[in-house]
Amino acid sequence: MSTPARQRATAFAPASVGNVAIGFDIMGFSVDALGDRVTVSVRDTPGVEILATRGVADELPREPRNNTAGRAVLALLEALRPGFGFSIEIDKGIPLGSGLGGSAASAVGAVVAANALLPQPAGPLELLKFALAGEAVASGGRHADNIAASLFGGLVLTVGIDHPRVKQIPVPAGVRAVIVHPHMFLATARARAILKGSVELSDFVWQTANLAGFISGCYTSDLDMIRASLEDVVIEPQRAALIPGFHDVRRGAMEAGALGCSISGAGPTMFALSTDATAPAVLAAMRREFARQSLATDEWVVEMRPTGARVIG
Amino acid sequence: MSTPARQRATAFAPASVGNVAIGFDIMGFSVDALGDRVTVSVRDTPGVEILATRGVADELPREPRNNTAGRAVLALLEALRPGFGFSIEIDKGIPLGSGLGGSAASAVGAVVAANALLPQPAGPLELLKFALAGEAVASGGRHADNIAASLFGGLVLTVGIDHPRVKQIPVPAGVRAVIVHPHMFLATARARAILKGSVELSDFVWQTANLAGFISGCYTSDLDMIRASLEDVVIEPQRAALIPGFHDVRRGAMEAGALGCSISGAGPTMFALSTDATAPAVLAAMRREFARQSLATDEWVVEMRPTGARVIG
Repeated sequence: MSTPARQRATAFAPASVGNVAIGFDIMGFSVDALGDRVTVSVRDTPGVEILATRGVADELPREPRNNTAGRAVLALLEALRPGFGFSIEIDKGIPLGSGLGGSAASAVGAVVAANALLPQPAGPLELLKFALAGEAVASGGRHADNIAASLFGGLVLTVGIDHPRVKQIPVPAGVRAVIVHPHMFLATARARAILKGSVELSDFVWQTANLAGFISGCYTSDLDMIRASLEDVVIEPQRAALIPGFHDVRRGAMEAGALGCSISGAGPTMFALSTDATAPAVLAAMRREFARQSLATDEWVVEMRPTGARVIG
Repeated sequence: MSTPARQRATAFAPASVGNVAIGFDIMGFSVDALGDRVTVSVRDTPGVEILATRGVADELPREPRNNTAGRAVLALLEALRPGFGFSIEIDKGIPLGSGLGGSAASAVGAVVAANALLPQPAGPLELLKFALAGEAVASGGRHADNIAASLFGGLVLTVGIDHPRVKQIPVPAGVRAVIVHPHMFLATARARAILKGSVELSDFVWQTANLAGFISGCYTSDLDMIRASLEDVVIEPQRAALIPGFHDVRRGAMEAGALGCSISGAGPTMFALSTDATAPAVLAAMRREFARQSLATDEWVVEMRPTGARVIG
């Protein structure tokens, strides 16, 4: 058994918006205004136990293999074999079924905290793989959009799964993300199950043009290009019906000056990108349209800074 | 009738590689080593006539509506109505059915030459639309990958068709394109007809990740990312069988150190990207594998400089 670097660490892992309209399963951005806190402690016996789950979701599985944080730390233990085990406490700050990357944040927070205890910490791409194994418990598949955004922070692209490569895409100065979370639950599995197994070739071309335009617009601070290209013609039309008032919320955001507006991950949370100046009006319009559906909301305006999960205690 | 700026102009429009593996119908790069020369003269009567077609392809349609250059200039005349007409002579430097954007180059060269005669020349995005109308004659659909690459030069992304937006993507220093044209004819219409009308969702995700990775790799000069992402998992598998020795040519290029290797446009020309140092070995491997198929080749190594079509006389 090696000697732990410390006995206990707490990590904060931010919420995240997956897909970002044009990057289904490959792009996400962090929402630092909320997140999960995961505390990991060394224990002498091997393996993982979940000591407690608290916060806005307390009905999480306690069996480590069925818990995103537990499974992620098990993946870390299996790969690195430090010779000791971990106890995990999870403080959820992200509601379940909100589309804000809650399961990803728990997995990321757990591996970041556990990594701080290791005498030889793993690198970020290794942590990404461990967290991916954890999130697969919740989503039924491996996709890195939320994981990479929460781990690295900012607007993040992930290419590849077995050998992932990560790019933090620059966000033009003054661009903000408006996040509006309506108080309803939408199971990720349901939002994924309704998706067709294929994409029309013409929609494929349109969506790839939008993706490429968005990324080039980010690298060149070209807000006109971002506005023209931040539109999901593949996934959003299939999921819109799952969110009451979707089209009105989107229209409200766009009429208030948003650069684009779509579903956060699998929903029901919606996001818009806008300039700093128009963000308050965009937020007000989105809140108003959800209210017309009798849905109360939480809202945040964030900068998408490239600061991801970190040890906070 | 307005007064022409001059009576006669000749434009050079470069060949181009469409698709670039991961940007089907939306991305292309110019190949300045060869191209079409189009000479346009003012004539007093309205409309367009094709005076001559010369060069490596002399069997082009003489009816302006059926000729890519003629149709493009007709689109220009219909939009701008200068009050005079144009006579067109086409010197083809790009073989027909080569996959090197020959029809696009004729359309681009024609509008660039005609534009030089106008008292109030149109801007480049207007010229792009006119040339698109011309190329549709040859390809049966409007897609800007070859047109925009030939018109603007360099590695070019086009977003949107009715209101196109163009981005010249930076090419990392030292990166070269190796172009190998086997001496066979492949009808673009045939290469397009074999494509399935839809894309599997998993392939869609994979290809979009590759596209996004390639573009971000270009903006950040990240050759490792370019090498990991320059792979077409959607179109190339469907077209590979149309090109004798395709898999051997590709394998030869990759084993010689290429960053990626795929089909130029609809084929049969193939291209590879590589560093300056490995380009000669990549070229030799591709030529060798085509030779094993008893196919002679023409080859070029180009820099993808952002210099597009221009008036040369």
